[in-house]
Amino acid sequence: MPSDVPSKTKLLLRALSGETLKTPPIWLMRQAGRYLPEYRATRTQAGSFLDLCYNPELAEEVTLQPIRRFGFDASILFSDILVVPDAMGRKVAFREGEGPVLEPLRHVDEIARLNCDVTEHLAPVYETVRRLRKSLPAETALIGFAGAPWTVATYIVGGSGSQDQAAAKAWMYRAGDEFQQLIDKLVAATIEHLSAQVEAGAEVLQIFDTWAGSLPALYFHRFSIAPTKTIVAALRARFPDVPVIGFPRGAGALAMEYFLQTGIQGLSLDTAQSLSFAKEALQPIGCVQGNLDPLLLVAGGKAMRSAARHILGELRDRPFVFNLGHGIVPQTPPEHVAALVELVRGSPK
Amino acid sequence: MPSDVPSKTKLLLRALSGETLKTPPIWLMRQAGRYLPEYRATRTQAGSFLDLCYNPELAEEVTLQPIRRFGFDASILFSDILVVPDAMGRKVAFREGEGPVLEPLRHVDEIARLNCDVTEHLAPVYETVRRLRKSLPAETALIGFAGAPWTVATYIVGGSGSQDQAAAKAWMYRAGDEFQQLIDKLVAATIEHLSAQVEAGAEVLQIFDTWAGSLPALYFHRFSIAPTKTIVAALRARFPDVPVIGFPRGAGALAMEYFLQTGIQGLSLDTAQSLSFAKEALQPIGCVQGNLDPLLLVAGGKAMRSAARHILGELRDRPFVFNLGHGIVPQTPPEHVAALVELVRGSPK
Repeated sequence: MPSDVPSKTKLLLRALSGETLKTPPIWLMRQAGRYLPEYRATRTQAGSFLDLCYNPELAEEVTLQPIRRFGFDASILFSDILVVPDAMGRKVAFREGEGPVLEPLRHVDEIARLNCDVTEHLAPVYETVRRLRKSLPAETALIGFAGAPWTVATYIVGGSGSQDQAAAKAWMYRAGDEFQQLIDKLVAATIEHLSAQVEAGAEVLQIFDTWAGSLPALYFHRFSIAPTKTIVAALRARFPDVPVIGFPRGAGALAMEYFLQTGIQGLSLDTAQSLSFAKEALQPIGCVQGNLDPLLLVAGGKAMRSAARHILGELRDRPFVFNLGHGIVPQTPPEHVAALVELVRGSPK
Repeated sequence: MPSDVPSKTKLLLRALSGETLKTPPIWLMRQAGRYLPEYRATRTQAGSFLDLCYNPELAEEVTLQPIRRFGFDASILFSDILVVPDAMGRKVAFREGEGPVLEPLRHVDEIARLNCDVTEHLAPVYETVRRLRKSLPAETALIGFAGAPWTVATYIVGGSGSQDQAAAKAWMYRAGDEFQQLIDKLVAATIEHLSAQVEAGAEVLQIFDTWAGSLPALYFHRFSIAPTKTIVAALRARFPDVPVIGFPRGAGALAMEYFLQTGIQGLSLDTAQSLSFAKEALQPIGCVQGNLDPLLLVAGGKAMRSAARHILGELRDRPFVFNLGHGIVPQTPPEHVAALVELVRGSPK
């Protein structure tokens, strides 16, 4: 693993190790993206969206763009949660304005044919990580990531994004043991993918369970908490110093059980999470991150400043990372991002 | 108000008054609807969906259909949350397969022109309630309902349903005081609409805040809890014996503050709510209702039975009403509904 400055001087790593900082570190989910004109310019040089993910030179460039502009405390690899199914043999296409499309997986015998050895196909992603580790400023932590098995399964089974995850749920409810086989395959592939990112230089990992909030409690335990726990245990055994952040979006009060049981070091809070619950029930377990509404970043002005100050007031007295409750949206004015960074850094405790 | 048997012999009213029952009452959100062939047959007799809502004879018929089939403990008036904006002067159209469409309200001077005196326009709805109170079996409680101001505002401002409520949020964040004027108008109209339903014979009221879960905590307090509290206080002053159920969908841990502060008698739990949180934090406050995933009712079989037994096991030892976590979906086999009712009734404590 390359090394530059000792990792523990990086603010994100200090917060995740349980330190309360005068000025919390800040980074934003989907900080590299369409709201930046320089991203849109680079994007035109790649063919498809997936071509951009698999092009180390261009992926490095778009990952660095928000760091140059805003000097975030962490940089998250530019990639997508669907590179894993793509590498497993479920070809993914991104159609402009439509989102991702896959050939839906609907038969149990197709599960056995999924390839969990994803690292060869994903070699360009690890090359991007290696480049970033060299090009990032010494104080910037590098985050690798993957989708959680449940969330990735909703795309593999559904064949596209959906609001109710009906196709994946239909299978999960009809034949839980078959669905478990799919989840197990995704657990294995995800461990390989995240491990390869650490070996290439990632210092922190985040697991995105975007659709965790559509699972009933019983299934949340089986298909969100349990697979994540297996992944985290495997990663901790191999890389005991690399913290993992979990993002069970929409988990509400179940976020406490998720935080306690998965073994993660940081919990990312969605937009709707109760801040008093976060303060009283979640921060005693470990570091939390979030939860500004991305649409407040679009609005900017007084509403954004009040909400950001409210979050800081509630959460900064314990280990905390400033972030959004979900990814930046394309219509975000970049100057609002600059104002947010200034506010968070300009109001030390 | 018409009276048949004393209200308090009805199971739903007993549960909402704080009684733990051997066999919990059961009704299902959207129990009158497209999954029933007899509904689809009646539907063809009406012009538009809204024509059906405004036709007392046909609306009564579709409300009664699930009671005849399944003998639910409660009947919910067949209507829609968007009859209120329709009556306020924001004409609503339902396009087949597209959902509701309204002329988006985007200027503050249009708010002053909203008509809060909705009861004349909605007279056919109250006529349906009066008919139902006569035609329902003596043991069946009659539920009236309305959308919560925040949720209705997302349609009025957005002009249609949306997944991120971006248009309403943009206004709310840009000019909170203007948005408050819209919410205040909706509070006034909602009080009138719910009061008229009670005067016509509704014995329980439910307030649907379908999009509560998209509000950050700060805004959840201002635009979900506070308006609901005002509505509930006005209703309790006029009708102290009529319990109100709140449904802040997606509120997660914030459901506790909602339950404590709004003054409601029952809290409806969405699909993702933690059952241990419901048992330990919510039931000590009052009666809870929910939370079976409607897609488990589509799946049926072992998964549905296990989940229903799990919910019963967690919640039946305190005041509880069996229900779904969201409305029945059209692809639900009616025989699964029959099996669920049998399971809930067939396994007394």
